[in-house]
Amino acid sequence: MGRGLFVVFEGIDASGKSTQARRVAHQRGAYFTFEPGDTSLGAELRRWVLDATTAMSPVTEALLMLSDRSHHVRSVIEPMLESGRHVVSDRYFASTLAYQGFGGGVDLARLEAATELAIGTCLPDLTVLIDTPLDVAMERRTPDANDRFESADPAFHQRVRDGYLALAAKWGSRWCVIDGSEEEARVGELIDEQLRSLPW
Amino acid sequence: MGRGLFVVFEGIDASGKSTQARRVAHQRGAYFTFEPGDTSLGAELRRWVLDATTAMSPVTEALLMLSDRSHHVRSVIEPMLESGRHVVSDRYFASTLAYQGFGGGVDLARLEAATELAIGTCLPDLTVLIDTPLDVAMERRTPDANDRFESADPAFHQRVRDGYLALAAKWGSRWCVIDGSEEEARVGELIDEQLRSLPW
Repeated sequence: MGRGLFVVFEGIDASGKSTQARRVAHQRGAYFTFEPGDTSLGAELRRWVLDATTAMSPVTEALLMLSDRSHHVRSVIEPMLESGRHVVSDRYFASTLAYQGFGGGVDLARLEAATELAIGTCLPDLTVLIDTPLDVAMERRTPDANDRFESADPAFHQRVRDGYLALAAKWGSRWCVIDGSEEEARVGELIDEQLRSLPW
Repeated sequence: MGRGLFVVFEGIDASGKSTQARRVAHQRGAYFTFEPGDTSLGAELRRWVLDATTAMSPVTEALLMLSDRSHHVRSVIEPMLESGRHVVSDRYFASTLAYQGFGGGVDLARLEAATELAIGTCLPDLTVLIDTPLDVAMERRTPDANDRFESADPAFHQRVRDGYLALAAKWGSRWCVIDGSEEEARVGELIDEQLRSLPW
């Protein structure tokens, strides 16, 4: 049995990516996972990074996210792919570049070097960016004052969205951009069209 | 009041650096700190990284150490230095380059880029490397099977020692190398001679 396919869903909070990632994983019989937090170490890291009561710089956030990712790749994603399982992940390396890099102002070149450490050669076969305008996402979100990402100002989220689009332009063929302002069913159709190109 | 001085002690386990770091901090009225672990976040990270029962790659170790360092610099070291306090730290960025880089085989160029993220502009005024031959350190150490560094093989520790010497050669004027095979009192004298050059 060959190596499994690795598909990643990215987007701003409340973009609809988690719903679509779970749906695709279920329909394709793929292993569903997410970042940050889908390991015991990661769950602790997620708790800290998302805990708005602890003052933490974007650099520290980024390094904790990369620690989680490094462990996640080596203990979950790579073993699954090598066993022939397909893997669908809700967020991966682009989240850190978008949120802490473009959003938080962390130096992008150094962040990319650190990302290369964390993920090694484990690149997604396809990254699906669900690009959702801020006002649409704002309407969908559930307010949660204890989540630092969700309590950040709109300008931050706009930088994150713009950052994702810049990454999609840079990475080109291994990314697709889906219009997240469409209805959920239509977003699903647009994604499924893109997924047909992969050798499932 | 001007900015405080920042002095770091480095060396392999049981090199004698912790004893000397504490002595110097005490005698100079400096704030004593250490890595990994001198923050609440750092204490948790230290517990994970040093817990040999959790399988963790050197890359993940390095990223956790850098997360700890980033938080330590921003929440402890920089505020102390800016308030005019001198700071003495038992370990700093060279430990990660020596242990996970030279010792664990993590790519050094990327590790240096990630280190630059973690520490920003906070470079030590002086790094004191206590260079202790492995056999001398082995005799001094207290066996602790639950500490992954202390349970690693001698070849690993030799790479760490050689790595430290390579870093000292590279960084030049901001480092001094002390012969750690001398008696403790003599090591102290050698260190104090080097510290005289600083504007305490």
